[in-house]
Amino acid sequence: MKLYTYFRSSAAYRVRIALNLKGLSYDTVPVHLLKEGGQQRREEFRQINPSGLVPAFQDERITLTQSMAIIEYLDERYPAVPLLPHDAPGRARVRELAQIVACDIHPLNNLRVLRYLVRELGLSEDQKNTWIRRWISEGLAGLEAHLARDPAAGPFCHDSSPTIADCFLVPQVYNARRFDIDLAVYSNIARIDALCVDLPAFAAAHPSKQPDAE
Amino acid sequence: MKLYTYFRSSAAYRVRIALNLKGLSYDTVPVHLLKEGGQQRREEFRQINPSGLVPAFQDERITLTQSMAIIEYLDERYPAVPLLPHDAPGRARVRELAQIVACDIHPLNNLRVLRYLVRELGLSEDQKNTWIRRWISEGLAGLEAHLARDPAAGPFCHDSSPTIADCFLVPQVYNARRFDIDLAVYSNIARIDALCVDLPAFAAAHPSKQPDAE
Repeated sequence: MKLYTYFRSSAAYRVRIALNLKGLSYDTVPVHLLKEGGQQRREEFRQINPSGLVPAFQDERITLTQSMAIIEYLDERYPAVPLLPHDAPGRARVRELAQIVACDIHPLNNLRVLRYLVRELGLSEDQKNTWIRRWISEGLAGLEAHLARDPAAGPFCHDSSPTIADCFLVPQVYNARRFDIDLAVYSNIARIDALCVDLPAFAAAHPSKQPDAE
Repeated sequence: MKLYTYFRSSAAYRVRIALNLKGLSYDTVPVHLLKEGGQQRREEFRQINPSGLVPAFQDERITLTQSMAIIEYLDERYPAVPLLPHDAPGRARVRELAQIVACDIHPLNNLRVLRYLVRELGLSEDQKNTWIRRWISEGLAGLEAHLARDPAAGPFCHDSSPTIADCFLVPQVYNARRFDIDLAVYSNIARIDALCVDLPAFAAAHPSKQPDAE
């Protein structure tokens, strides 16, 4: 199987963690988001993902985009190490946590959006960073409150083993750090991130460990 | 069961369609996004959803947010009318289509984001509308290309009955129309929307048919 990825893409980072947690080996196909006006926007890559975004995934059965869809597919095809709980409320909760990251935080800080803010709307570097920090902080505050109130939060986002929620949380925390967001106020998030980040599956998925890292 | 909803929220609209497709009756709890500085941001509602966003869902087992997580939960609990295909690649494809809407389009045009653009960044009405149209158009173009290339696209987004993908597509098309986007160029999207919109489950979920409609 192949993963079209960019080392710093947090959506690709999520899928790398899931693949590693399941012990699946895959071929990395680097798609450089900045070179050549963005390789993800070239016709060649649009044959894989017409939306022109990473990650994209391919195996012998499917070409698939959207990190959540890819990870759910992996979870169904390779159930030996499950990334969703066995009970319906548990699964719902894990999906909810992942989607807080996928829908409420990450889309606002995507490269194409930041570019529009700077190039089309003329935002300064300061204004751009304020924008980024605003949505990450607001989103993490919501995520933290969800984790804080729920007895199902364990050492991981849900209970005592990594789930899809952790695959989404860790890359978002990595992004938060890049923009100097103080994580101390999000004590559950900081605690879960600290636990995950040293596990081999998470560590090997880190942007700095990718073949296309700069 | 209860749905915390706002008539014009496209994320709530998705869940209403899913509930109707499954023939489930529910209590509507209106949360007005504009009155009282936004009822979704009040402490009372944050007890339900700490992120301060609609929709939220409650039954005797769970309080749940995020439209995709809510609909997947409904699909697991009430499988009689399935909203996901039976095969793993089919399910992956439906989730992918829904997430193109949920992650690539909708978050950029959310009320809180548009407010920030106007209030914090001083965008004019014209600039705001250009922003909205840009992300809807780009997202719908991706979605259209996905639908156009895939033999699994049937009369509906996937094959011959409504799935989660249609629950996401129709509210996004409704939003596109509100901002005068010409749908003629997205022929698969326009065709699927036209088929869905008259079905009773979709029609009853329309914003204009809600108890809190204005």
